[in-house]
Amino acid sequence: MKVGILMGSDSDLPIMKESAEILEFFEIPYEISIISAHRTSEKALEYAKTAEERGIEVIIAGAGGAAHLPGVIASLTLIPVIGVPIKSNFLDGLDSLLSIVQMPAGIPVATVAINNAKNAALLAIHILSIKYPELKEKLKKYREEMKNKVIEKNEKLQTLGYKKYLSGS
Amino acid sequence: MKVGILMGSDSDLPIMKESAEILEFFEIPYEISIISAHRTSEKALEYAKTAEERGIEVIIAGAGGAAHLPGVIASLTLIPVIGVPIKSNFLDGLDSLLSIVQMPAGIPVATVAINNAKNAALLAIHILSIKYPELKEKLKKYREEMKNKVIEKNEKLQTLGYKKYLSGS
Amino acid sequence: MKVGILMGSDSDLPIMKESAEILEFFEIPYEISIISAHRTSEKALEYAKTAEERGIEVIIAGAGGAAHLPGVIASLTLIPVIGVPIKSNFLDGLDSLLSIVQMPAGIPVATVAINNAKNAALLAIHILSIKYPELKEKLKKYREEMKNKVIEKNEKLQTLGYKKYLSGS
Amino acid sequence: MKVGILMGSDSDLPIMKESAEILEFFEIPYEISIISAHRTSEKALEYAKTAEERGIEVIIAGAGGAAHLPGVIASLTLIPVIGVPIKSNFLDGLDSLLSIVQMPAGIPVATVAINNAKNAALLAIHILSIKYPELKEKLKKYREEMKNKVIEKNEKLQTLGYKKYLSGS
Amino acid sequence: MKVGILMGSDSDLPIMKESAEILEFFEIPYEISIISAHRTSEKALEYAKTAEERGIEVIIAGAGGAAHLPGVIASLTLIPVIGVPIKSNFLDGLDSLLSIVQMPAGIPVATVAINNAKNAALLAIHILSIKYPELKEKLKKYREEMKNKVIEKNEKLQTLGYKKYLSGS
Amino acid sequence: MKVGILMGSDSDLPIMKESAEILEFFEIPYEISIISAHRTSEKALEYAKTAEERGIEVIIAGAGGAAHLPGVIASLTLIPVIGVPIKSNFLDGLDSLLSIVQMPAGIPVATVAINNAKNAALLAIHILSIKYPELKEKLKKYREEMKNKVIEKNEKLQTLGYKKYLSGS
Amino acid sequence: MKVGILMGSDSDLPIMKESAEILEFFEIPYEISIISAHRTSEKALEYAKTAEERGIEVIIAGAGGAAHLPGVIASLTLIPVIGVPIKSNFLDGLDSLLSIVQMPAGIPVATVAINNAKNAALLAIHILSIKYPELKEKLKKYREEMKNKVIEKNEKLQTLGYKKYLSGS
Amino acid sequence: MKVGILMGSDSDLPIMKESAEILEFFEIPYEISIISAHRTSEKALEYAKTAEERGIEVIIAGAGGAAHLPGVIASLTLIPVIGVPIKSNFLDGLDSLLSIVQMPAGIPVATVAINNAKNAALLAIHILSIKYPELKEKLKKYREEMKNKVIEKNEKLQTLGYKKYLSGS
Repeated sequence: MKVGILMGSDSDLPIMKESAEILEFFEIPYEISIISAHRTSEKALEYAKTAEERGIEVIIAGAGGAAHLPGVIASLTLIPVIGVPIKSNFLDGLDSLLSIVQMPAGIPVATVAINNAKNAALLAIHILSIKYPELKEKLKKYREEMKNKVIEKNEKLQTLGYKKYLSGS
Repeated sequence: MKVGILMGSDSDLPIMKESAEILEFFEIPYEISIISAHRTSEKALEYAKTAEERGIEVIIAGAGGAAHLPGVIASLTLIPVIGVPIKSNFLDGLDSLLSIVQMPAGIPVATVAINNAKNAALLAIHILSIKYPELKEKLKKYREEMKNKVIEKNEKLQTLGYKKYLSGS
Repeated sequence: MKVGILMGSDSDLPIMKESAEILEFFEIPYEISIISAHRTSEKALEYAKTAEERGIEVIIAGAGGAAHLPGVIASLTLIPVIGVPIKSNFLDGLDSLLSIVQMPAGIPVATVAINNAKNAALLAIHILSIKYPELKEKLKKYREEMKNKVIEKNEKLQTLGYKKYLSGS
Repeated sequence: MKVGILMGSDSDLPIMKESAEILEFFEIPYEISIISAHRTSEKALEYAKTAEERGIEVIIAGAGGAAHLPGVIASLTLIPVIGVPIKSNFLDGLDSLLSIVQMPAGIPVATVAINNAKNAALLAIHILSIKYPELKEKLKKYREEMKNKVIEKNEKLQTLGYKKYLSGS
Repeated sequence: MKVGILMGSDSDLPIMKESAEILEFFEIPYEISIISAHRTSEKALEYAKTAEERGIEVIIAGAGGAAHLPGVIASLTLIPVIGVPIKSNFLDGLDSLLSIVQMPAGIPVATVAINNAKNAALLAIHILSIKYPELKEKLKKYREEMKNKVIEKNEKLQTLGYKKYLSGS
Repeated sequence: MKVGILMGSDSDLPIMKESAEILEFFEIPYEISIISAHRTSEKALEYAKTAEERGIEVIIAGAGGAAHLPGVIASLTLIPVIGVPIKSNFLDGLDSLLSIVQMPAGIPVATVAINNAKNAALLAIHILSIKYPELKEKLKKYREEMKNKVIEKNEKLQTLGYKKYLSGS
Repeated sequence: MKVGILMGSDSDLPIMKESAEILEFFEIPYEISIISAHRTSEKALEYAKTAEERGIEVIIAGAGGAAHLPGVIASLTLIPVIGVPIKSNFLDGLDSLLSIVQMPAGIPVATVAINNAKNAALLAIHILSIKYPELKEKLKKYREEMKNKVIEKNEKLQTLGYKKYLSGS
Repeated sequence: MKVGILMGSDSDLPIMKESAEILEFFEIPYEISIISAHRTSEKALEYAKTAEERGIEVIIAGAGGAAHLPGVIASLTLIPVIGVPIKSNFLDGLDSLLSIVQMPAGIPVATVAINNAKNAALLAIHILSIKYPELKEKLKKYREEMKNKVIEKNEKLQTLGYKKYLSGS
């Protein structure tokens, strides 16, 4: 079992590393690579063609602007591809989002929220958990902890009141 | 193996039936249900809580406007959820798209293009193919056929020229 | 008489506290809680189901991104729900606004301006004043003061001229 | 108890009548008037100033384009105002929505979805139900029926399958 | 001859002062006032009703968000009204622009670019120059100077080259 | 006194004729011409340069898409220019609106609502009324009639009720 | 000298044929092909790699939605690529436009207006005219005729007046 | 062979210099000028009319807001014009983009991404390479280097891992 994390440029790494962090937390092996759909199109082709034999079962691809990487990879492999729209400098990420999500019939890309590389990794794990049931347990625990954090924050808010809560944080 | 297709209203059925058609074509068992996140919130809860035991491995949920169904279902189950933004009457589907794709960290929804229930089903099959390798073969064939259709159309265009192509169709 | 203030995450608190401040100013009892529609869906359900018996008569719910909290709460209670779209990092609050305001027929959410938790509280008070006429007087005075502040600023502008007004402030 | 329904032009009536229909269904007295914030500004002023003494407890105002009616009325009365953005011909209702919802601090308008005059009336009833508890019962029944309609449609879908369901309707 | 400059809040003054500066440069008498369409609606009414007798011939009104001031003033007077959409915090000024420009048939507002109070004053002067031909001469000179500044900058660029031009400025 | 109506293409005539109709109603002489900023740039130059000597005092220019005509004319004359954004086929008029309203400092265009050629003519008349006070009377009467039409419609609505009103119209 | 016209699907042909018509009018040889970036990615690669040797000097590529074809082709060849955003069903062509125009640094696509395949061909001819000066003459004549058509329409409008012009056309 | 770089204001120079830098890198002679379509319209006319005789073969024009410069120049010359939408302060560059790209049939502008003056120059070189084949070699080398930079970054990422990569950069 392995996840492939791709990004079009190293400027996307501060966002895409959050995918890696989640996968590490869940102890899922992963590859992380910089491959541009446009500047290194042969590498993208090669990556997609060999991903399956390298054991990759889900691909996460982040890109910004006219963000073609997730769609291009999805067209070259049968492995499910998750797209992360990276916030661009000019149109607040709307260009990235539309370039990734509006794929034509036949080649889907599973798109998550703008810059939400964390959710991309979690989606990959939900997907993998169909085959690897041990991940279900881990996901259940992860959600439990998420829930508890919200509950603890709420309890802290009830105890302190909002003024102390805000000044204290 | 089973896929659950959900929609918030029967007005979404003319779109969401395309998910069913694809699943039938791939001979994948599925359920199809009308469950509103808002009008039948208990049914939604019950659906999400029992989906796993009914053998559902991927859920496809379509909704329009302030489209909460995919996110609400995703928050109630560990099964991966694919969201289909249904084109609304007023903002050309942008409201549906943003309400589905912009999920907060922790609860991902795999969003596809507006009204693209076909791609939602294909994405479900790509996801299932990780566990059920026989689906890979079917997907390969499906893509092959898709490719051949484009190639045939191109050949027809080369033979007829664009004028005859357009008048003939 | 009591108002319930909800928010999906403590990152919304710096905005949502403005609802609390207005309610304090009007001496209206309130609860303030962090409850996520997605991460603590059971808590949300419980909150909505018990709100009425705890004496809550209006609920104010703030959320950002795919902002489902106000709609989800509204679907679970008959108490009127006011939604505050919290400005998100990526689409300037448009996603939050559309996710809250574009509710389907049957389950309305009374939506106010992006980040305008102050107006949410004022709207709650206008609503409560139907039943509690003493609030009408307070609202009248509040508006009077608001008006006077604008009038004073205008008088200051007439006296000082815009150059001194701007350098002085 | 009475609700005031306002609209800026009789071209909004085919939408705004849905507010009236809901109020009739709930047996709530209402007035319905055509008053333009811009073309009959004195009438708007007069309406707002006398609404309270005529027994109006909630106002519903629909308008399109640079839709000022709800905000102008809200600034002239302490009665809570619900705004219905009417879909305009040119920007798909976005102009109407933003002109109504983005009110400055101090003067809130409770905004509902574009063209959703039905929800405006339901919101008015939720608001009135704080004071008139008999409305709670009616709302409960209304929601119950709404829920049952969805459940019936779902059952029909389960019985017929989607093909017959679609051809039959 | 006099121009009236209005704004809804003193937070708009840093923008609206640019109208005043242009009018001073052209030696055109003006009034500048803070009048909110919503918080001081009576003042707005009074202002509009008495503007003509005070000798005001053009009104410039700036406002942000659900920016009703220009339209409300325009509905109350026959004096031409120029609207300046003030950039709001949340939707990058799109809400302000649409709330001002999309006025219904019958009550026009002459809208200029977002935050462009300078152009509002210039437009006022173009309008006044129909009646006061001496302004035509001043406008001609103003444009000549504007043109010469661009030409000088271009000459400087030709002489220095872009590197020195940029490091020097 | 004369108004010049310009449009970039005869496809804009069904909209721009509404400017002509208003001017006829007010008995104001006008010229109406098809002049493209791009296809007949010399004609545009010539038009702008000779407009003043032909007695034109206000220019109304309508254009769609990358709508440069109003700005180009405004840059070539001191006569005030009113811009009418014509709804385009593709982005619902947003491109036309932004291309006309977002003029840089120095060259203002008085922009009206999308397709609102009627308001463009009314704005021209408000502007001309500064110099020609007899127009004030006509405008007053026009507004009075507008007001009365709304009042009559409201009275008809009060008499008939909304059901008969709608079926009758 | 030859131009290559590409489109992602035969549903784009009714738009893209306008490129062919212009090239025929200018007597410029061209190829027209249906090649999908996603469904026939190998064909796209092959096309781009062999275009130069087949004598193609400019490529025109039209695509809609997440429109990757122009960018993908541009990344695979040194031939200049012109992109035509095809209007999509859901977001009025904004998705197509942004997916084509917002290319990252290094791989430009010369983007024209939504659905404006005619301009794509004219741009191709302007580009070719650098090398083939005889095209300059043809372009000059084409523009002359365009200009004359506008002038004739204007003269017709002057002769007939707008009422007869509109009823006659 | 020469390229003309134009911009509407020296505030665009920090962006437009990137066109100059690319042209210098490729050793292509260029002119760089500040010419406003609106403030120096005669200069724009003169520039366009004399560009060809000065040996200019491609024009790059950058402008922001209601960005008319590229379209105006394109209408005055047969030289191909590349438009660079400069990010405006208010609508995130959407106004600049639409004002440049949405040109009417007959007068194309080759539009590149917002602020992407670098790509404008590269596009100019691709265009010139049709006539000057020696540029093909340079472009090939440029792309090779671009590719190698991505490959090197990827290799560095493989060697260091993402944590060291990020802390090191």
